[in-house]
Amino acid sequence: MNPEQMKPSIGIDIGGTNTDIGLVSPQGQCTDRINISTTAFPDFVAYIDDICIKINELLKRNGLAVEQISGVGVGAPNGNSFTHTIDFAPNLPYKGRLHIGEMLAERLHMRVAVANDANAAAVGEKVYGGAQTMEDFATVTLGTGLGSGIYANGRLLLGHDGMAGELGHTILYPEGRRCSCGRSGCVETYVSIRGVQQTYREICEEQGISPVPQISCAEISAEAATPEGDVARETWRRTGKHLGLALANTVTLFSPEAIFLMGGLAQAGDLLLLPVREQFEHCVLPFHQNKIRIELSHLKSNEAAILGAAALTSM
Amino acid sequence: MNPEQMKPSIGIDIGGTNTDIGLVSPQGQCTDRINISTTAFPDFVAYIDDICIKINELLKRNGLAVEQISGVGVGAPNGNSFTHTIDFAPNLPYKGRLHIGEMLAERLHMRVAVANDANAAAVGEKVYGGAQTMEDFATVTLGTGLGSGIYANGRLLLGHDGMAGELGHTILYPEGRRCSCGRSGCVETYVSIRGVQQTYREICEEQGISPVPQISCAEISAEAATPEGDVARETWRRTGKHLGLALANTVTLFSPEAIFLMGGLAQAGDLLLLPVREQFEHCVLPFHQNKIRIELSHLKSNEAAILGAAALTSM
Repeated sequence: MNPEQMKPSIGIDIGGTNTDIGLVSPQGQCTDRINISTTAFPDFVAYIDDICIKINELLKRNGLAVEQISGVGVGAPNGNSFTHTIDFAPNLPYKGRLHIGEMLAERLHMRVAVANDANAAAVGEKVYGGAQTMEDFATVTLGTGLGSGIYANGRLLLGHDGMAGELGHTILYPEGRRCSCGRSGCVETYVSIRGVQQTYREICEEQGISPVPQISCAEISAEAATPEGDVARETWRRTGKHLGLALANTVTLFSPEAIFLMGGLAQAGDLLLLPVREQFEHCVLPFHQNKIRIELSHLKSNEAAILGAAALTSM
Repeated sequence: MNPEQMKPSIGIDIGGTNTDIGLVSPQGQCTDRINISTTAFPDFVAYIDDICIKINELLKRNGLAVEQISGVGVGAPNGNSFTHTIDFAPNLPYKGRLHIGEMLAERLHMRVAVANDANAAAVGEKVYGGAQTMEDFATVTLGTGLGSGIYANGRLLLGHDGMAGELGHTILYPEGRRCSCGRSGCVETYVSIRGVQQTYREICEEQGISPVPQISCAEISAEAATPEGDVARETWRRTGKHLGLALANTVTLFSPEAIFLMGGLAQAGDLLLLPVREQFEHCVLPFHQNKIRIELSHLKSNEAAILGAAALTSM
């Protein structure tokens, strides 16, 4: 470990609703954190100013000076690792290209690294989680959308323009569900919170259940544990089938050592994992069968995003 | 260029029927070559011995000593870059794990590099072809099967076990055509010599044409140029659609700068390229549209495989 890696770092996880700011120890513990609203500010400058106030507050109450911090990492939707900007993120209230890296560095006099949230998650798994010894692996974040981060040859895969790793927008079924990206059949339309809810509704309709209940993914999981939970169990089974196929195709291209699942849907545990693994083994080439680990992230779910952001400082 | 890169190299392209051995200049010209049968030998040792005889013949008639050669590169089906072996190649007459790297090095006293033929093609495009300035690109070889080689972050993507880059065996349509790998709907079942011929037959059957003619891909191309060539044109259109979707998904994951097509089917030129590009643009995310080059390999088609093998020596 070089001296910088022995210092704590700051991780900022920017979501559409909340922004989480955490102090992370060199060993990967989030030792203190502050949460602010992402949307409560008149403009992006005011938002950034408040983030800086909160970071200084974190430092002060932990008795730390700027020089004792290795840097600040930002995980954000559409975060661009090449330009340290957030580019045209549809689910943030601030529009256009946002120069967050430059603005934070100017105000804080610290090194700032930026990545999209899905890539930050992969870096977190590499630096603090289950992928510490791996050169080739992928992380898949299952939430409002489906994000992915891929390591190849020991490096985060960014591609020519920094936009690599969009597994959620590979097309699984060309004539499939309409996606918010304007195309049809993206993996994300099946394997995401909304995708799972739609599958549940479709199964209800197939079985003539009316009215179709409005139900959250957590409720679908709870229902699956009851004797009457056939619809819920079938929902997870189909979701797992879709994800298993998408992961198999990913493995056929990348040949990773493991795939780590995280995010809200991963809370479903074996309800999701068992059909994922079954379909995955069915869809990979024979020489990949029974070799690739598909498991839950080794990071605590309520800390993973902050740890991922903080880990960007050690890239 | 380091001194080794200023020496000529030897490329060996091993196919199921023929083995091509070529002398390649540092500038990427195949200046001399010898072709032998892959299948005419009683065992693998006899085959390797004959390859060595032919290499020595090439050196002798070009007035070159062993020390004047940078090394030998072998492109072969199931060539393994980690172990320098050929592993259980179904379409070679020699079975099991073949220690070709070690056997050639012992006999020739030269450095030997091995890769599967699809990866060798990518290395050839990087070292001698259209990808010389690129860090992120893919090559797709369209022949008996569909092979692919991918560069990410300036390095050939091999994956954890050396088996990365099998685009031909990603599943395009889960309920699709049976593949020789034992699964269904692989890209290769649609986009390969046999796949194109099957598509032609299917269209004949749809249109009630009987008997269905036995026809080669070159003949399908020729027929497409005639006024009566509707079936042939539709064959290439559907093939292009399948390939365009597969390439779009590849770009969504890797975000390369360009994709180079080569191999027998690429000879169809615009008959294939135009529908590929149309479907590709339809299936990539908006921020990738009109940015990714899809073009034919910059290497001469009758030299590409030898150049790719020879290029392995400069990795």
